[in-house]
Amino acid sequence: MPSKQILVGIVGVGLVGSELVSQILSIPAARNPFKIVFLASSTKVLYAPVVDADPAKWKAALAASTEAVDLKALGSYLRTLVAQQRGEGVVGRAVIVDNTSAESVAGMYAEWIGQGVSVVTPNKKGFSGDRGVWEGILRAAEGEGAGRWLNESTVGAGLPVINTLREMVGSGDRVRKIEGVFSGTMSYIFNEWSGKGVEKKKFSDVVRVAREKGYTEPHPADDLNGADVARKLTILARTIGARRGCRCLGSYRDVQTQSLIPKALEGEGSGDVFVSRLGEFDEEFERLREEAEREGSVLRFVGVVDVEKGVVKAGLEKYPVSHPFATSLGGSDNIIMFHTERYSPRPLIVQGAGAGAAVTAMGVLGDLLKLV
Amino acid sequence: MPSKQILVGIVGVGLVGSELVSQILSIPAARNPFKIVFLASSTKVLYAPVVDADPAKWKAALAASTEAVDLKALGSYLRTLVAQQRGEGVVGRAVIVDNTSAESVAGMYAEWIGQGVSVVTPNKKGFSGDRGVWEGILRAAEGEGAGRWLNESTVGAGLPVINTLREMVGSGDRVRKIEGVFSGTMSYIFNEWSGKGVEKKKFSDVVRVAREKGYTEPHPADDLNGADVARKLTILARTIGARRGCRCLGSYRDVQTQSLIPKALEGEGSGDVFVSRLGEFDEEFERLREEAEREGSVLRFVGVVDVEKGVVKAGLEKYPVSHPFATSLGGSDNIIMFHTERYSPRPLIVQGAGAGAAVTAMGVLGDLLKLV
Repeated sequence: MPSKQILVGIVGVGLVGSELVSQILSIPAARNPFKIVFLASSTKVLYAPVVDADPAKWKAALAASTEAVDLKALGSYLRTLVAQQRGEGVVGRAVIVDNTSAESVAGMYAEWIGQGVSVVTPNKKGFSGDRGVWEGILRAAEGEGAGRWLNESTVGAGLPVINTLREMVGSGDRVRKIEGVFSGTMSYIFNEWSGKGVEKKKFSDVVRVAREKGYTEPHPADDLNGADVARKLTILARTIGARRGCRCLGSYRDVQTQSLIPKALEGEGSGDVFVSRLGEFDEEFERLREEAEREGSVLRFVGVVDVEKGVVKAGLEKYPVSHPFATSLGGSDNIIMFHTERYSPRPLIVQGAGAGAAVTAMGVLGDLLKLV
Repeated sequence: MPSKQILVGIVGVGLVGSELVSQILSIPAARNPFKIVFLASSTKVLYAPVVDADPAKWKAALAASTEAVDLKALGSYLRTLVAQQRGEGVVGRAVIVDNTSAESVAGMYAEWIGQGVSVVTPNKKGFSGDRGVWEGILRAAEGEGAGRWLNESTVGAGLPVINTLREMVGSGDRVRKIEGVFSGTMSYIFNEWSGKGVEKKKFSDVVRVAREKGYTEPHPADDLNGADVARKLTILARTIGARRGCRCLGSYRDVQTQSLIPKALEGEGSGDVFVSRLGEFDEEFERLREEAEREGSVLRFVGVVDVEKGVVKAGLEKYPVSHPFATSLGGSDNIIMFHTERYSPRPLIVQGAGAGAAVTAMGVLGDLLKLV
C-alpha cells in the first residue's frame, strides 16, 4: 500500500461514475494511490465496496444495499477514516467525487471541504449557480486544514482548459478574451448544418438525428436554451476573477444568452412533441444560415468571456469559412481560444471531444492525480 | 509566510530565468509560496538574494558575487535549508529550476532528486540524451523521500503538452500517435514559405529573415538539423513508454531525423557563411515546394511518435491545404495532435506559441505551482 493513500468516495455511478471506477482500477496496484471507500447512487450507498474488474459485481452489491444516502453522513464517514489512518501513521487524504449533476450534492461542497475532504467533480452546478454557493466553496477552501476542489472536467471534459487557465492567471498572465465552442451538442448540430461543402439539411432534421444518436439531452430544449454554455462561461469568468477578488456574475443567468428555442415552443414539456414541432420553424433557421452563407460565413453557437469589454455572452455568431471554428471543427468537438497578454497576437487553442463518459472520467481522474 | 513554503534555487538567469523571477514576484506576497534562495549564472552564484521588482538590482548583486558556481554545493545548500525549516516546524520543500540548456546541469538532476530536491526545467538535455541519464533520473525519483521532476516546458513551452500526455497515460488511455509541429523556428520558416496564398520567396531569404528576427539559433543549422525536434519527440516517446516499463530510444539520435542542411554545408562552422551560402541550394528547396503545390499540399517540418508502428521520426511532410497544419498555423505556433483510444477518430489538439521567454517561464512556473 502506498504510504500516501487517497480515500475516494464516489457519488453518482452512471456512465461517468462507472467509467471512473474502471479507470481507477486500471492503475497497477503497486502504484495505485486510490482506495474507493464508498459508492453512492441517488438513493443508496455501499460502504467499503469490493471493487474488481467486473463492474456487474459492485453494481449488484450497491443495488442490494439497504443503506440510504445521507450526504452529510458521507463527509463524516471519510473524516473518521482519515483520522483512523493518521493514528496508524499513514498520511491519509480523502476526496469525494461528484459525478451527478445534482444541485443538492453541489450544495454540500463547502461543508465537505471545510471538514478537510477534497471535492473533484464534472458537476457545473456548484460553480455556476448563485454566487453565494460559489463564495461559500472559496471561503471553505481557505480554512486551516481544508480540502481542495478541482473541476477541470466541468468545461471541455478531459481537455486541459481549467488548469491551463488557472496556470495562466496564477503566473500573472492577463486574459483578454476566451472564445469557443463549449457544447458538444451545439458543435455537432452546427457542424452538420452550416459549413463549406456541408450537405443542405433542415435544422429540425439535424436536431432529431442528434437526439436519436444520444448527442442531446432527452429534451433537446435543455441544449438549445444555451444554459449549458452559460454555466461553462460562468465557471471560466469566475476562475479568472477569483484571483483578483472579483466575484463577478450573480449566476449563469447573468450571462447574455441567446436561446435557440422558438418562442412558440418555450415551456413545451415533452421532448417528443418539441422535436416533432421544431420543423415548423425550419424556415426561420434557414434564413439565418443563408444570410451567413451569402457573407461567406458559417454559423456557430459560441461562448465569449470578454474581460476587456466586461461582457460574457453565449449565442449564434458568424465566422468566415477560413476561421478555425469553420475549418477545423468536426464531430462534437469543443474548441477553446485563449487570447492573453502572453498568447498574443495568436491565441492558445485547445480542441477535441468535449463530452462523453471516457474523456469526462479522464478529466476527473486527472484531477484526482493532482491530489497525489 | 505561508506554512508550506517552497525554496527555489534558480540556475540560469538569461531571458527565461529573468522572466521567471519577475513572474514569481508577481504573485501577491500573502499567498506566494515561493522563496528564491539562490540565483546562479554559468559562472557565479548569489545566495540569499534580495529580489525585488527592479531586476537591475539582483543582476548587479549577482555580477558582484565572488562565489563560483559549484553544482554539487547547490544541492547540499538546499538540503541544509530544508532541514533547518523542518527544525522550526515548517514543512519545507526545495526545488532547483534549471533554465540553462547545459548538459552539465542536466547531469546533476539524479543526484539532486535523490537528495530530496525537486527539479523543474525547460532544458531538454536530461530527458532526451543518453538513456542512462534518463534512467538515472527515473530511478532517483523512485527513492524514499526523493524529489520530483517536472518538465512541461521542454515541449511547446507553456502549452499544456507533457501534463496532458501524463494524465492520458496515467488514467489508462492508449496513445496511438502524436503528430505535430514542435519547433517554433521551423513553424515560422514553413508558414512563410509554403502555403495557400503565401507570397513566393526564396528559402534562403526566409531563413535569413528568421535569423535577423532572432527566431533561429545564432547558427541556423542548429535548427535546420532537426535535432531540437528529435529531442522533443524523445521526451514524448519516453513519457509514454516510462509507464509501461519501456525505456525506448537510446537517445534523440535514434530518432529518424531528416536534416535540412545541404550536404555541402554540413560542418560549416560560421552562421554568417552558412546563411550567405544557403542561397546556392534554393532551387533544390523550390523543387520540393513545387512538387507539394502540384499535389495541392504544403510542406511542414513535423515530428511523429507513432506508437502503433513503433516509429519516431522528424522531417518534411506534405499536408493538404485543408489540413490544420496548413490552415490554422501562423507565426511561430506549435501544434500538437494526440491520437488516442479515447480521442478517436478525432484527435485532441493543442496549439499556440511554442517558444519565447514569457510563455516558457509560464510553463516553468506552472510546474512550480504543481509542487505546492
